[in-house]
Amino acid sequence: MTRQELIHQIFTKKTFLCVGLDTDIKKIPEHLLQEEDPIFAFNQAIIDATAPYCVAYKPNLAFYESMGVKGWISFEKTISYLNKNYPDHFIIADAKRGDIGNTSAMYARTFFEEINLDALTVAPYMGEDSVTPFLQYPGKWVILLALTSNKGSHDFQLTTDQNGERLFEKVLKKSQEWGNADNMMYVVGATQGQMFEDIRKVAPDHFLLVPGIGAQGGSLEEVCKYGMTKDCGLIVNSSRAIIYADKTERFAEVAAQEAQKVAEQMAKLLPSKP
Amino acid sequence: MTRQELIHQIFTKKTFLCVGLDTDIKKIPEHLLQEEDPIFAFNQAIIDATAPYCVAYKPNLAFYESMGVKGWISFEKTISYLNKNYPDHFIIADAKRGDIGNTSAMYARTFFEEINLDALTVAPYMGEDSVTPFLQYPGKWVILLALTSNKGSHDFQLTTDQNGERLFEKVLKKSQEWGNADNMMYVVGATQGQMFEDIRKVAPDHFLLVPGIGAQGGSLEEVCKYGMTKDCGLIVNSSRAIIYADKTERFAEVAAQEAQKVAEQMAKLLPSKP
Repeated sequence: MTRQELIHQIFTKKTFLCVGLDTDIKKIPEHLLQEEDPIFAFNQAIIDATAPYCVAYKPNLAFYESMGVKGWISFEKTISYLNKNYPDHFIIADAKRGDIGNTSAMYARTFFEEINLDALTVAPYMGEDSVTPFLQYPGKWVILLALTSNKGSHDFQLTTDQNGERLFEKVLKKSQEWGNADNMMYVVGATQGQMFEDIRKVAPDHFLLVPGIGAQGGSLEEVCKYGMTKDCGLIVNSSRAIIYADKTERFAEVAAQEAQKVAEQMAKLLPSKP
Repeated sequence: MTRQELIHQIFTKKTFLCVGLDTDIKKIPEHLLQEEDPIFAFNQAIIDATAPYCVAYKPNLAFYESMGVKGWISFEKTISYLNKNYPDHFIIADAKRGDIGNTSAMYARTFFEEINLDALTVAPYMGEDSVTPFLQYPGKWVILLALTSNKGSHDFQLTTDQNGERLFEKVLKKSQEWGNADNMMYVVGATQGQMFEDIRKVAPDHFLLVPGIGAQGGSLEEVCKYGMTKDCGLIVNSSRAIIYADKTERFAEVAAQEAQKVAEQMAKLLPSKP
């Protein structure tokens, strides 16, 4: 999906919500455990119910890999289902990959050619040749970790170098030598509040993927106040607060209600047109 | 596997070689493509042939994931085969994972409980809570990326902070607040030569996992000169130079010869006892 197509989706649907498919067999409604593939059954129901209120889906691969081969089957079925039935939704694999050049190239082939995702989260620690193989696919995106939503983000990401530049700022600047606002986004945690102002000084046009509202406690208003651009420039993710809002047979319906609530908030915060 | 068991293996077998199982369907001998599971058939033959000359195996998950569900089956079969037939070998999954706490905990469960590996490579960018969930398993190891073997390692890992400390040094120091030399190792690329001296100032006792000899051009002598400790303290990996040394039906035999050559070099460089 191109940047223009993404912006079109956001302003047409008046939402910039991403639903995180962090599907955990221990947390899904019990009645689904009788299904042949409970993880896929859960995802399918959540997707069908929430699709009108979001522009993106983001399965976190850890949850699927934790189930081994079965988990990979559920993951691939979920992506196929999305590609077939919801081609206008942006599909992100939250994988946080990144390896030496030839290995990153293998990952890129997997996720962009075989599985046909729109975007992949990538960790920046190994530098240029770990990231650039993902940038060779038209219409596909790297979403590079910049300032994450967790407590540990303070350990290294905020380290200030000899020129007074923090590591996450260095990541934002350096990576703009490799890609641009048409093929690269950044992960910035909603829990980082006013840091969005600093991010926008270095990356004024890039889309930001923002985890951390809902269960992690970040504020949507604050994120928008400091991080929104004229093109929106934000994809805000919520996982647990939506998909596990209810554990009965009504889970999908309640998830849709939760997604709708967030989307309504978003509609108020979004400019009327790009 | 505990640190003492690992040291015992190294000094008994007089080798600290790790064979990297970066198995690529496009690079394995053609006659294996008729097998039901060519990747596993290749790994099995390579393992049986090289086991006397190495103490560790390291499949890089990218190569398996690039084949989707089939690849995961081959990966799990390989690990089961190793656990069953070579329980004295140290098994590392080169996964470079790392996510927020609850997600890292999922990964830890997968790799240490379900799949029963000895160690997992982990990326440090997200800090403490992305790493510590992996440290909760007795006899299991985190191998944290410190100074990698690729060109991109210069982009961020060598950034010097306001106290004159480079990022990889900060990773080495900070992470020693989370784990110790009994449950944590570091990845340091063989291509980094004399940097091993600096690494040893900060991490004098930790084992280092060293990729980058062979195809990537690092020198075993230099790594040992600057990086070896009285307990050896090194696991040196070679992938392509061993497993793809020959592409005929003799591939496993030739791989064994290559592994043996490296092991003979290692025997000369190793102290006679810890």
